Amino acid sequence: MASRPIRRAFPPLNILSEGQVEQLDAAAFRILETIGIQVTSPEAVELFRRAGARVDGEAGRLRLPRELVRHALSTAPGAYTLHARNPLNDVHIGGDDCALMPAGGPPYVRDLDGVRRPGTFADFEALTRLSAMSPEIHVLARKVVEAQDVPVAIRHLECWRAALLLGDKPITAGFVGGRPEAQDALEMLAAVFGGESALDGHPVAQCSLNVNSPLLFDRAMVEGLLEFARLGQPVIVTPFVMAGVMGPATLAGALAQHNAEVLAGVTLTQLVRPGTPVLYGTATSNVDLRSGSPATGSPESAVCVAVAAQLARHYGLPCRGGGALTDSPVPDAQSNYERMMLLLTSVLAGVNFMLHGAGSLESYLTVDFEQFVIDLELIAMLRELVRPLEITPETLALDTIAAVGPGGFFLDAPHTLRHYRQAHFLPAISVRQPYDQWLAAGGQDAARRANLRCRELLASYVEPPMEPAARDRLHNVVERRKAALLG
Amino acid sequence: MASRPIRRAFPPLNILSEGQVEQLDAAAFRILETIGIQVTSPEAVELFRRAGARVDGEAGRLRLPRELVRHALSTAPGAYTLHARNPLNDVHIGGDDCALMPAGGPPYVRDLDGVRRPGTFADFEALTRLSAMSPEIHVLARKVVEAQDVPVAIRHLECWRAALLLGDKPITAGFVGGRPEAQDALEMLAAVFGGESALDGHPVAQCSLNVNSPLLFDRAMVEGLLEFARLGQPVIVTPFVMAGVMGPATLAGALAQHNAEVLAGVTLTQLVRPGTPVLYGTATSNVDLRSGSPATGSPESAVCVAVAAQLARHYGLPCRGGGALTDSPVPDAQSNYERMMLLLTSVLAGVNFMLHGAGSLESYLTVDFEQFVIDLELIAMLRELVRPLEITPETLALDTIAAVGPGGFFLDAPHTLRHYRQAHFLPAISVRQPYDQWLAAGGQDAARRANLRCRELLASYVEPPMEPAARDRLHNVVERRKAALLG
Repeated sequence: MASRPIRRAFPPLNILSEGQVEQLDAAAFRILETIGIQVTSPEAVELFRRAGARVDGEAGRLRLPRELVRHALSTAPGAYTLHARNPLNDVHIGGDDCALMPAGGPPYVRDLDGVRRPGTFADFEALTRLSAMSPEIHVLARKVVEAQDVPVAIRHLECWRAALLLGDKPITAGFVGGRPEAQDALEMLAAVFGGESALDGHPVAQCSLNVNSPLLFDRAMVEGLLEFARLGQPVIVTPFVMAGVMGPATLAGALAQHNAEVLAGVTLTQLVRPGTPVLYGTATSNVDLRSGSPATGSPESAVCVAVAAQLARHYGLPCRGGGALTDSPVPDAQSNYERMMLLLTSVLAGVNFMLHGAGSLESYLTVDFEQFVIDLELIAMLRELVRPLEITPETLALDTIAAVGPGGFFLDAPHTLRHYRQAHFLPAISVRQPYDQWLAAGGQDAARRANLRCRELLASYVEPPMEPAARDRLHNVVERRKAALLG
Repeated sequence: MASRPIRRAFPPLNILSEGQVEQLDAAAFRILETIGIQVTSPEAVELFRRAGARVDGEAGRLRLPRELVRHALSTAPGAYTLHARNPLNDVHIGGDDCALMPAGGPPYVRDLDGVRRPGTFADFEALTRLSAMSPEIHVLARKVVEAQDVPVAIRHLECWRAALLLGDKPITAGFVGGRPEAQDALEMLAAVFGGESALDGHPVAQCSLNVNSPLLFDRAMVEGLLEFARLGQPVIVTPFVMAGVMGPATLAGALAQHNAEVLAGVTLTQLVRPGTPVLYGTATSNVDLRSGSPATGSPESAVCVAVAAQLARHYGLPCRGGGALTDSPVPDAQSNYERMMLLLTSVLAGVNFMLHGAGSLESYLTVDFEQFVIDLELIAMLRELVRPLEITPETLALDTIAAVGPGGFFLDAPHTLRHYRQAHFLPAISVRQPYDQWLAAGGQDAARRANLRCRELLASYVEPPMEPAARDRLHNVVERRKAALLG
């Protein structure tokens, strides 16, 4: 059961005119040249300075000439393959493909008893097992939930190890908390993949450069990136411009600033190592002006992801954005209309990688087991929606239409018998049955059905094998570093 | 608070290639020419025959030459205005606009106590009040629910009267059960609009021609159409091809047959009265092969509506399709991911009119008050998603970005204060607040919040005035016909 990204069979949705793309492009370059960015990593500042960025005023304030940015865009690849320890699970990122990772970074979990509580390592393992076994999840998450019962100092070691052992798909790190943590991650990956040379220019794990919008690049985040990019591991540059708080209230301004922030991050990756894969990312949206909370499931959020995907295409970069997102704290109607709006918009607009593809609730803060399993169904539905419509003499079936004739039935036609098994999507969660049958079967809503399905899936999980030598090397790295960090 | 359709600011989504459009076009013409249709209305058969259709074999079996169909397509308008008794509520149908009607035809209601039961006249009135007062509903439904406590013989009279009195928006009849019922409807409309001459070529109400797929046109349905089209009232031609039962199991075959059925219906409208507005409709989808139930919320359903919208554009016709549809019997996760998938696909693909735009559950069978109010929010979200992104120096806000600078905050910037009120969508149902606040406020899910909101809306309803003379004429028609029909 190899895991393949969703492939869209038709051209992407463009919501901007060509002129609007040029406006947002021009505004971003103007921001980079005249307003500039602030970078709190001296090493990154030096890289920018040597490449021609103007350093003036406060420390770390950089103005980027457009030639510098244009050159970086010319060396960043348009697509790449993210390799898994099982080559059957290698993932193509780019083009008309959309690969999905589950939730990234939630501190809380909503468990199968419906209780919201701090995430644990057991939750991390269970969610990683679900991710590893589903054909709808293509990339594992180092932070599918925060394992809050593991000490912070060694949490990354335990979670990387578990992700590497429990699944055989590629992994996305998310935000890496500084250089030492990045080095640990790369050492564990090297242990599994056969040494650091096996990682060099061979993407196996992605890290995030989350911009501290507006226009601020934090030291820990940047230095994690420096380590990953040094080996040519992919970087996801993601501004989180909440319009009205971390950027202008007007979407055009927020998107112009967003665009400038991505281009600055892309430039940095190419200064570290030209050709490093880098994703044009977005988590930009608005805030709810009554509560001050982020509005991740808003229509503005969908607009921002569609714009980001179109801008990424304009720059020849793969795009990260969207996902199964909601501001609802429970897997209810809101949770599902918001996430379907974002998922579908993202797939149609040409997003290539989704970082919160399953399970997320409550504006990124919680991951829910029931919603996770519902999301596997949503992803499967989208795969079906965007696949090629096969039009051939056999599928047009004009002879069958003639034979059945007006007012007839197709159920027992030979053509129907030939095709009905593969012709249509069969849901695992959705019901389609007469009301009385549904009631007789327990009258369960979708979340309840997902709860039962989730328990079945977890009971049927089988750990993929890992070569004993690699396993030993991995354990050695983890135990050595744990000892050092716990001192 | 005038009610305006959703207007999409960017080009529609095309999921077929040009070559695929031509394949489905060629297949449809081949079906019409060589397999033909069956029409059980002698008057309609005679119209077809006189226009050049070949009548042979069984009675009512007609083969349609392509010139006949092409000529009909040349006289059918690409867009039209559906007039309301309050001109502020006139609705443009066509182009980049999408107008919505609530549920059409459900026999059951799920009430505000969560009880599913046969619909009543009181339900009809309540749902019509909600439709009349919401800016997200543009066209009222003569059958928003079946008023099962009103005798069948006079149900149409009571419901038309209520729809005309409780709202001042245009009305869609849905399926009209034969000539006498159509005549009654037109007489009531004439009473309100100022005589039959006021209806002549002045669209005020739409009727449905639902095809009995495959390729069968039922007498009662066709004769209702003849009455509406005679006055130039718009007709919605809608095949209901459940792939595998009423058409080939393969989507290509189902869509080819569907296309032929629409073109035959369009041709009939133009034979009655050239220039009559006619919608390219679709309710085509698959069946669930385990239960035999229709799968209205399936990905195949979304594919069919996108294809129909593209074919409608190809023929220069406005399109009816999609809607807030689901196979779930309750307003849960499934109900909302399915309907959002269909609503968003429909709006992006260029559907111009949705016949089940709010409240529908259980594969058309039930209308739910909670879901109805949730759907008003979904429609408002889609309006926001597809509106123009305004990019001007003021919205780009480069001066503000410069003034705030890296790491700053925009909340108190003058630009934010100028824009924040209008910049973003404010939901009525969705929550965006910290978990503890949500819990303290009752911990209600979206359906529960919609329940309370629905009660508030119904309590605030005000009936729009109708000129006393028109009201008297309407009552006279209804009472006279009731006496005759019950007599």
